Amino acid sequence: MRIKFDDMINEFKRILLKKGFSEEDAYTSSKIFAENSLDGVYSHGVNRFPRVIAYIDKGYIDVKAKPEKVEAFGSLERWNGNRGMGNLNAKFGMDRAIKIAKKSGVGIVALGNTNHWMRGGTYGWQAADAGCIGICWTNTMPNMPAWGAKDRKIGNNPLVMSIPRSNGEHVVLDTAMSQFSYGKIEEYKLRGKRLPVVGGYDTKGEVTREPAEIEKTWRVLPIGFWKGSGISIALDIIATVLSSGYSTADIGKKCDDEYALSQVFIAIDPSKFNAPEMTDSMVDNTLKYIKNSQPVEEEREILYPGERVIATRKENMEKGIPVEDSIWERIESM
Amino acid sequence: MRIKFDDMINEFKRILLKKGFSEEDAYTSSKIFAENSLDGVYSHGVNRFPRVIAYIDKGYIDVKAKPEKVEAFGSLERWNGNRGMGNLNAKFGMDRAIKIAKKSGVGIVALGNTNHWMRGGTYGWQAADAGCIGICWTNTMPNMPAWGAKDRKIGNNPLVMSIPRSNGEHVVLDTAMSQFSYGKIEEYKLRGKRLPVVGGYDTKGEVTREPAEIEKTWRVLPIGFWKGSGISIALDIIATVLSSGYSTADIGKKCDDEYALSQVFIAIDPSKFNAPEMTDSMVDNTLKYIKNSQPVEEEREILYPGERVIATRKENMEKGIPVEDSIWERIESM
Repeated sequence: MRIKFDDMINEFKRILLKKGFSEEDAYTSSKIFAENSLDGVYSHGVNRFPRVIAYIDKGYIDVKAKPEKVEAFGSLERWNGNRGMGNLNAKFGMDRAIKIAKKSGVGIVALGNTNHWMRGGTYGWQAADAGCIGICWTNTMPNMPAWGAKDRKIGNNPLVMSIPRSNGEHVVLDTAMSQFSYGKIEEYKLRGKRLPVVGGYDTKGEVTREPAEIEKTWRVLPIGFWKGSGISIALDIIATVLSSGYSTADIGKKCDDEYALSQVFIAIDPSKFNAPEMTDSMVDNTLKYIKNSQPVEEEREILYPGERVIATRKENMEKGIPVEDSIWERIESM
Repeated sequence: MRIKFDDMINEFKRILLKKGFSEEDAYTSSKIFAENSLDGVYSHGVNRFPRVIAYIDKGYIDVKAKPEKVEAFGSLERWNGNRGMGNLNAKFGMDRAIKIAKKSGVGIVALGNTNHWMRGGTYGWQAADAGCIGICWTNTMPNMPAWGAKDRKIGNNPLVMSIPRSNGEHVVLDTAMSQFSYGKIEEYKLRGKRLPVVGGYDTKGEVTREPAEIEKTWRVLPIGFWKGSGISIALDIIATVLSSGYSTADIGKKCDDEYALSQVFIAIDPSKFNAPEMTDSMVDNTLKYIKNSQPVEEEREILYPGERVIATRKENMEKGIPVEDSIWERIESM
């Protein structure tokens, strides 16, 4: 089925109000969940919503919490998320970083004790909508083995980078440090398909494209093998050190659920140096050059980061957002 | 053969003085080249030195150039590298970023019109030695196809992240966005070995571990396939927009040589919030947790980013730096 964007917001909002959020927070958070689905990231929109509600019920997410400033020095700030709603906290974090950047070129907000931000790209789009370059990342629970290891002790720690274009069609990269999410591996298995590239190890310790084999070991692959393992470790440590929050190690030691995360939000305002049309022209030059590549498959267009999102957004805004019946029924019954 | 660290510096310095560098610049640049080899990154130390001299002779590198400030706004600065020596300019860039960070928590220096910085890790170690978190990257000439493309239109754009430890054994990640450098692929071919993981495409369009097959297409793989392709594009655009320098596209359009690059140096001073022992304890907790992973091979230790460098540095300082006879002879004859 397809649900209209506004109807989806209203439905989420109804439930969040019931859970005790303020009118404003319920709307803002619902809008982010709906936008994630609108943009085609269903895994962190409508499909994730029931689990977030479960986390509220378990007491991991405090519906009344507001982020608090812990320390500030120049363009650098440390905030405590007080275990509030992850998407509200993250939006707040990037918003603060943007405010600082407008004042001093760059702003960095480290946010500890927060919760899953859902789709990281949200905060990249947010920075770019404000005319800023955005760079942000989050740590996660341990869900991937470090390179050379069998057991999962590092996070897939999504990293986001965005560059503004004045037509709103920003360049937004949103990538986890694992080659595939657990959800994607599951999805391929259910469809009876092999992964497009290797995604993890089988029980014999060989890399494989068979999702069912990977599910036997859960030894998923970092992007670039040892390289993504290293990036994940560095991102986690920087987030921990700057926020004084929990590391992936700390999160893993607590319990099997994922809460109390550490995040970093960086905003840089290029308009301090460039007129918007100058930034546009630099971005466009590079995108045009790359899109003019010789494609591997005749018909296949070379896409830049964020390009597909814009097409999906337009389509879902017109036709409604595709949702599995069972998931929507579950949400309606909440 | 093995060459003592100080002897290597002196030999490089002799040649750089002959090429017209000032006493101070010749020493500083030589020391960086020698340190790269000392730390085991021979490809961007002694082995690269002759090519840099050739670039000086071709006029790509201006031995007298000094970086100039173009714009500054708060914690953000734009500098023109004036096509000076890449490692001197990059050292200067990170140094400025550190100075700004000491004053306002964060410093970002965008450096355009510079040259190859050799080993990116150098500037990560530099930031960490100053007690700062360092994040920096450079663009490169087009040397890798974008995801879905056959021809090389994106750079391998190395990314560096470092976190300081007060014992000097910093966490330093230094990773290009290609799975393997051209040099590494060549090295495996010469040794008659397959790459440890897939590194590119063969002439049939299949991913392969055979270096000789990859050399037929030069369709090398980005880390994480589509993911590293996206990261490379984002890093390039951010460096271009902030520095107003050349993009990978611009560099590619000029000629087949790699000069006039764009770079970004970010320094963040965690000591504004944490006593050094607090940062140490957070870093150590994570490293200990990861190093306690269950290894895939009984005897193989799980390493954190930068760990191997420290061991190599100690060994090469004691025994001298290993150099191929032919390369050293060539340098001695310069």
